[in-house]
Amino acid sequence: MTDDNNPTFRPEARAPKGFADRRAADIAAQKAIIEAVSAVYDRYGFEALDTGGFEYADALGKFLPDAERPNAGVFALQDDDEQWMALRYDLTAPLARFAAENWQTLPKPFRRYAVGTVWRNEKPGPGRFREFVQCDADTVGSARPEADAEIIAMAVEGLEAAGLPRGQAVIKINNRKLLNGLLTTVGADAGQKLGVLRAVDKLDRLGPDGVRLLLGAGRKDESGAFTPGAGLSAKAAEQVLAFTAGGGGSRSEVLDRLSGVIGASAEGEEGLLELSKIAAALSSLDVGEDRAVIEPSVVRGLEYYTGAVFEAELTLDILDEAGKPARFGSIGGGGRYDDLVARFTGEVTPATGFSFGVSRLAAALAAAGRTGPERRGPVVVIVFDEAAMPEYFAVSAELRAAGIAAEVYLGSSGMKAQMKYADRRASPAAVIIGGDELAAGTVTIKDLDLGRELAAGVSSNEQWQAARPGQQTVARSELVAAVRKIVGRV
Amino acid sequence: MTDDNNPTFRPEARAPKGFADRRAADIAAQKAIIEAVSAVYDRYGFEALDTGGFEYADALGKFLPDAERPNAGVFALQDDDEQWMALRYDLTAPLARFAAENWQTLPKPFRRYAVGTVWRNEKPGPGRFREFVQCDADTVGSARPEADAEIIAMAVEGLEAAGLPRGQAVIKINNRKLLNGLLTTVGADAGQKLGVLRAVDKLDRLGPDGVRLLLGAGRKDESGAFTPGAGLSAKAAEQVLAFTAGGGGSRSEVLDRLSGVIGASAEGEEGLLELSKIAAALSSLDVGEDRAVIEPSVVRGLEYYTGAVFEAELTLDILDEAGKPARFGSIGGGGRYDDLVARFTGEVTPATGFSFGVSRLAAALAAAGRTGPERRGPVVVIVFDEAAMPEYFAVSAELRAAGIAAEVYLGSSGMKAQMKYADRRASPAAVIIGGDELAAGTVTIKDLDLGRELAAGVSSNEQWQAARPGQQTVARSELVAAVRKIVGRV
Repeated sequence: MTDDNNPTFRPEARAPKGFADRRAADIAAQKAIIEAVSAVYDRYGFEALDTGGFEYADALGKFLPDAERPNAGVFALQDDDEQWMALRYDLTAPLARFAAENWQTLPKPFRRYAVGTVWRNEKPGPGRFREFVQCDADTVGSARPEADAEIIAMAVEGLEAAGLPRGQAVIKINNRKLLNGLLTTVGADAGQKLGVLRAVDKLDRLGPDGVRLLLGAGRKDESGAFTPGAGLSAKAAEQVLAFTAGGGGSRSEVLDRLSGVIGASAEGEEGLLELSKIAAALSSLDVGEDRAVIEPSVVRGLEYYTGAVFEAELTLDILDEAGKPARFGSIGGGGRYDDLVARFTGEVTPATGFSFGVSRLAAALAAAGRTGPERRGPVVVIVFDEAAMPEYFAVSAELRAAGIAAEVYLGSSGMKAQMKYADRRASPAAVIIGGDELAAGTVTIKDLDLGRELAAGVSSNEQWQAARPGQQTVARSELVAAVRKIVGRV
Repeated sequence: MTDDNNPTFRPEARAPKGFADRRAADIAAQKAIIEAVSAVYDRYGFEALDTGGFEYADALGKFLPDAERPNAGVFALQDDDEQWMALRYDLTAPLARFAAENWQTLPKPFRRYAVGTVWRNEKPGPGRFREFVQCDADTVGSARPEADAEIIAMAVEGLEAAGLPRGQAVIKINNRKLLNGLLTTVGADAGQKLGVLRAVDKLDRLGPDGVRLLLGAGRKDESGAFTPGAGLSAKAAEQVLAFTAGGGGSRSEVLDRLSGVIGASAEGEEGLLELSKIAAALSSLDVGEDRAVIEPSVVRGLEYYTGAVFEAELTLDILDEAGKPARFGSIGGGGRYDDLVARFTGEVTPATGFSFGVSRLAAALAAAGRTGPERRGPVVVIVFDEAAMPEYFAVSAELRAAGIAAEVYLGSSGMKAQMKYADRRASPAAVIIGGDELAAGTVTIKDLDLGRELAAGVSSNEQWQAARPGQQTVARSELVAAVRKIVGRV
């Protein structure tokens, strides 16, 4: 039954779950982040790229949706020609498709950044949306560790440009090849390696003792549920824990320490060499030890990374919902992935990138106490006398021409409702032109902040009428100057 | 069969039909439009609003998708809870939903602007996309014709701020009530009224003679196909044509002329009064006769408009594909709609707005010869000697710190490929630091534009080697100043 079939049907006015309406303050905060970061990425020589919201499902590398779960993880639908397409769930898969499609004509390495909406068909929750904006920068076609270093330096600078104070965020760098090489030397198979990655990923939550169990036979949690472990020997588990505990101190200190605990594998050596080249380039790029550290416990989920991985963390202590100090944690991350373009072309194409969620960074900035300037509404020209509408419009146009946001009240309510409207819009001032003003060639301007302040000290209505708090009457020719004085003060 | 099931499967790298990849120049052009227009809308006191990409299908006012055509016009899919949702196809329906949902707490009138992607599941074609960005401004909750005038004034100013020269675009204004009232006086029924609107909408293409046939018995086209007409009497058809021909001259001239040809109906009188109030407010707002005209032939499709309608047109003559002069035509439009919020709340809520497509306006600006400044790539620091990488990175960081876009070449190719890369990136300059420069504490800077110019006048390879066109070697400490000279000149 639809409204078109049944004219008395009234749909409920609500947005789908997990989709948010954003008002001006949020929009401005996100816009400021995007502009600051884009300026940095431009300066690093990265080129802006937009791709469409949809990609063919095969290009996204997901299973084709089936009848049972057509939308597992993504929002997918069939096009007219029966091909499945899906809204992108990140900006990396579309980049891989674009790079593969245009590889012949692109400058190589191809360095691009992108700011775009992504969609995840997951269960929404508080602060967990099914649609949000990501900002990514990637270099495709360079195997050099210096390309990773450049991405890290740029991320550091981008986060600072967005307003995150130096010292309140840090990029943690690791390389998958180190742990992988170590596990090869202890004879772990592919399944065990995956189990180890999963276990190490829980270090934050379980600590070394919990992870030791998961590296070995398994772990029973408080509820009694048992998680099977990776099945490493006790000695191998200790080697892994010694490796993950190898952080702390300067980048070269960590590198020295790690070379002693990763064992002797070609892959491990390669990873260490890459990390040391990243560290050298970071120093050349003047990225201090406080802004980027080598941290072997960073795993970066179980995604498609093949070498270096990095994670940006807010180091600031915040209060959690229970009022206890907590870490804000990850605000973005990335790493090296060499197989995404190969999915299309068959040719391994080295790539590396960094990604962050714009609203997540906005939340981090808010947690760091960096909220934008207070947002003010327009000056409201009050409609006192219908016959004077031409004057009201002329006044509003004059204020706007002077760069001051202004509007004529266009509802049909009286003075009191109009002042309330100005209040709701957070207007700095109202302009009142009645018969007296028209006759005298003047305008009355009410400073709404000052009025509110003064009114707080006035007890009776009569007193208020007499005092007219924050109100002044000036010559019509003084309008712009007088309003500017009030607005400028805000 | 998917790549996950079959590791040798290679998806084709292509975007779905009707979805475009946009490169930096396009992105910059659209961004400039959005920023210029947003600044104007802010100054008019309109508040930015973002809503999500999806709305429930019933909120969009479309038929629920059926098994045969699940995607008729929109991209729709079923959520986990079986509810149909669809990607928004405009920004008006989401505004209506938002306003209805939040009416109690919104300042009234509620004035908002929105810049957002919309999706149309239609057959794509050249210049016809299934995903594009719209920019809308609407006032909800004001029945005043002055609210229409303000929207028109703001649209005029917005288009000019975006770069459309005054005199090359005009807003044409009409009011549905005029023609409706006229048709009531000649006894037309609802079906006939619709037929008349459709006929008048073809004035541009068929001219008055063709439309006369469609107003009457019907019209046979060149192919012999017959379109039935609205069935008006010959006299009534002439009255309609007299009305639609009533444009030309100043707004008050048109209003005077129209009052003589719309007959005597309450609705027509109401429409005329609204138009005259709009005209008066436009004059108060200093919107000259060259920027907004009253044009009774404007119909604005068959959408949901209930009163005033307006259309922005590029008046500039352009050349069509065949090289013949043509009109660029409509670049945006809007009008008054009073029923959209009522769908949810049952209460008629007057609203008016203006909408334009950002890429359509970008195309209009290009047609008007207003392309943005030439886009330049970064300064490329050439990798001549691997051992000097730290110096290359330091140089790039120094240039960036001075506000100059710069990057170290991070591919693995030699000098020639690196210079070609710089060319492809449209770099203004390349920085070359080899053994000589390192030893002497200098840098060599190649002005790539000048080099290209000079090289054109050099015939032999030996000559070129000697001349080193556009190349200079300066002290390391002079690097930034020397590069700035070149980049500044660009």
